[in-house]
This record gives sequence, structure tokens and C-alpha cells, in this order.
Amino acid sequence: MEQDSLISRVPLVRVKDYLVEQAEDEVVREVPITIFLNDQEFITVVCSPFSIEALVAGFLFVEGIIADRKELLNIKVLPDEGLVWVETARSTAAESLFLKRCLASCCGRGRSTFYFMNDAGLAPVRAEFTVTVDQIRALNEEREKRSVTFRTTGGTHNAALCTPREIIYFDEDIGRHNAVDKVLGRAFLDEVPFQDKLIFLSGRISSEIVIKAARAGVPLIVSRAAPTDLALAMAEKLNIGVVGFVRGNRLNIYTRPERVKVDA
Amino acid sequence: MEQDSLISRVPLVRVKDYLVEQAEDEVVREVPITIFLNDQEFITVVCSPFSIEALVAGFLFVEGIIADRKELLNIKVLPDEGLVWVETARSTAAESLFLKRCLASCCGRGRSTFYFMNDAGLAPVRAEFTVTVDQIRALNEEREKRSVTFRTTGGTHNAALCTPREIIYFDEDIGRHNAVDKVLGRAFLDEVPFQDKLIFLSGRISSEIVIKAARAGVPLIVSRAAPTDLALAMAEKLNIGVVGFVRGNRLNIYTRPERVKVDA
Repeated sequence: MEQDSLISRVPLVRVKDYLVEQAEDEVVREVPITIFLNDQEFITVVCSPFSIEALVAGFLFVEGIIADRKELLNIKVLPDEGLVWVETARSTAAESLFLKRCLASCCGRGRSTFYFMNDAGLAPVRAEFTVTVDQIRALNEEREKRSVTFRTTGGTHNAALCTPREIIYFDEDIGRHNAVDKVLGRAFLDEVPFQDKLIFLSGRISSEIVIKAARAGVPLIVSRAAPTDLALAMAEKLNIGVVGFVRGNRLNIYTRPERVKVDA
Repeated sequence: MEQDSLISRVPLVRVKDYLVEQAEDEVVREVPITIFLNDQEFITVVCSPFSIEALVAGFLFVEGIIADRKELLNIKVLPDEGLVWVETARSTAAESLFLKRCLASCCGRGRSTFYFMNDAGLAPVRAEFTVTVDQIRALNEEREKRSVTFRTTGGTHNAALCTPREIIYFDEDIGRHNAVDKVLGRAFLDEVPFQDKLIFLSGRISSEIVIKAARAGVPLIVSRAAPTDLALAMAEKLNIGVVGFVRGNRLNIYTRPERVKVDA
């Protein structure tokens, strides 16, 4: 099996009507990756087994553990062991910070939409960003094309970080959140600016996705699926545009409609 | 808006070709619920806004915070405030236990399949349990019927706890994990045994779902969707049967095939 394969072959018993057949089939892979931060065991995430460096960088970035590329001194992935060693400049209080966040953030957040955002320490995104409806449609076609050809699909989620004109980063994961962390992490590693980009994802826009966008400073989230009401309430306050149900010639603009230009 | 409504109405701008229309549409609700455990703020989970008592009981149970119904002295839901007050008999070390688990479990788990399970403190399920293919098909029909009629659907996940003959508990949530926690929590509150039941869910069987089943002692997990390879490896070791892709007259048996009888 290839180390970065999305798919694993497993034996199974296939039943059709009352006919039983021994068979073999493909199932999607899921691997635990344990992050050691400054020689301390820190967290284990379960993910699709590729783009691990990007995933870890993105996770540490959107969770607020590192804020700047310069703080990330070293990141080393040992894929066979499922281990990632990370060295950061900011070693002080990293664990207690994380534990607080673990309670306040990765397992859920806040007491209401207001506290939710306050606890997460987020500020509204400041960006003059616009995209046209035609550009969104073109990006959606490109995203769907890549989701077919990128890897053998196993019903995974995908995410892309895009300028209005093109996809800059594209990735997949069994976890909707991981796919977003991977593309944000790659941009973080490359020190690419976020305020002139949009996140395009295949799955639902939930509150956690809005928090990731806010942390990175991305002004627009676009999806072929739906947003939740909490995601919309937070996006409104964080000055983030939300576009959903991008399918063929249709789309819905939920927040910050001024970010989307409709011109024939 | 009803307190337990799955759906919220929001304004939006609908674009079709280059036609722009102000409209209103339904989006799925997502609410943060903060659990106070023995007067300490404990965790916030994001979920669909109903069956909160079951969700909280199930979460505390499958995360190992409470192991027995008698340990749960009081549970009070304040739906308008998004707060749940829980009083347990085992107040000692509950928070540190949770923090350890938060690192080891709810944000991911272990270093490999082996450590994964060891860290979670799980033992193989001991149960003599069988179900027939016809019973699985009948349960699937019933589950699909309920998922249409239960609430206006918003593309949520559903889960059921069943005997071979009937669905005992059924619930829905925007989170796949939450839907399972809700049905396990309701059974826990009612002190219903688990070793003669199966979990039937609409979504993917990932490693976390196997851990929940193992914690409760449920011997079989059935889904209309696929399992992951890690879920199968863990289920094999934990003596849990996994059946996937239950659709019409077909199904796949991945682990413990002796639990499923194929008789015309």
C-alpha cells in the first residue's frame, strides 16, 4: 500500500439477496497522527494520510498556537510512525494555552454566539475583496474537476484556497475540517497572504469553518453545500462573506453580498 | 422559531444565471451547548438543538466521565441559555480525567491502532449477538422512513439503537457523532442494556464511532455508508461487527461475519 494512498483494500462478505460472496473492496483510509510540540506530546488528529505537514501547520495556525511563519522553527513528519515533531519559537505556556483551547475551541466553543467568538479571540476580517459570479462558477468547475482527478475518491471532502482567478492550493481529507486546515496550512508555510483569497469547500459551512477563516483572515467562504445558522451569524459579525449551494448556474449569497459582483 | 426546530429561516441573495433575487431560505440550525459539571464549566459542544439531555448523558458516558446511571445524580437543561447543569457522584478528578481524554480522545486518539485503543481504555465487547440479513433490511427501511418523517430534514445525520426486531431509539443531529451520542445517552438514562442491541447510523463508520460502541458495549455497528480502514482494524480487535452499504437488497459484512445470519 502506498503511504499516501487514500484507499485501502479490505476483505469482506458481500450479500446480495441471499447470495453470499467473499470479496475484497476499497475503503477510505483513516490514520492517527500524533504531534509532538517542543518535545511534549501534544495532540493526535485522525486524518487522511497525505499532506500531513500542511495539516499540522494549518492546525497549529488556526488554533492560534502559532501566529507567524517565523515562529515555526522546524516541522518533521515521520509518516511510517504517524508522528510529527514540531519546534516553535513560542514554547512558553503552549500546552496550557492549548488545554484552554481544547475546552473552549476544538471540542466546541463558548456560551452563545457572542461569547463563542470572544472566547476564540477573533476580530473581524479587514479586507476589500470582491469576486464575480462568473469567477465563482469557473472556480467551482475547476474544483470539481480536481476532486475527480486528484486521487481516487472515497467520498472525501475537499477544500481549495483561491484567488478570484485560480485555485492556488487544493486538498482532500476524510475530515471536512482537515481539508480546510491543509490548504490554510500550505498557504501559511508558503507565507502567502490570505486577505485576497477565498476558501472553496465541498462540505457544509459550520461555525468551526468560519472560525478558521477568521483566524487566517480570509474574507469569503464558498461552498457547494449549505451553511448553518450559527456560521452565518458569526460570519456576519466577523465581516466574512458566505456563498453556498454553488451548483451550475446557481448560487446563494448569505452574508456580505457586496463581496460578490453579479455582471453578465 | 421553535426551540427544538432543526431549521432556521435566513435572508439571502439568490443568483440564477445573472438574475438576482432577494429571498428567504431554510438553513440547518447549529447551537453551542455548554455543560457545567459539578458547578465547573466543563465543555461546550455544537449540535442540533434537541435531545440535549440525551446528548449530554451520552457524551459523558461514552467519554468515560460517568460509567453507571447511578453516578448521574442530576441533569438540568436550560435550553434558552444553552446551558446544561450536571451533578455526578464521582466529582473527584473528573476535570483532569477529562483533560487527559480531551488530548487523548475527543481531539483524536493514540499513536497507532494499538495505542489508540489502549489509551482509550477499551476492552473487547463480550456478547453473543446475532441478527439476520432480513432484520437488517427491515431496520434500514424503518430508519429511512423515520429520517423523512422525524423532522424536516436539513441533510442531518441520524442514528438508531435497535434490537434485531425494532428501533428502540432514533435521533438526528448535524454531527454524526452527536446523533450516536444521543441514542446511546437515551439508553443510558433508561438503563437499557447494550449487549443485545446494534447501532444503525446513516453516516460513515469512523474510528470514533467504534470507540463509542466499545465504551457502551454494543456488539454490532450497521450503516448505509462505508467504514474506514482504521474503524475496521479497531472493530476487529474490540470484537465488534461492522456492516456497511446497507442499500436495498445488498449489504457488506466487514468484521465478525458470524454475527449476521444469511437465511432466505
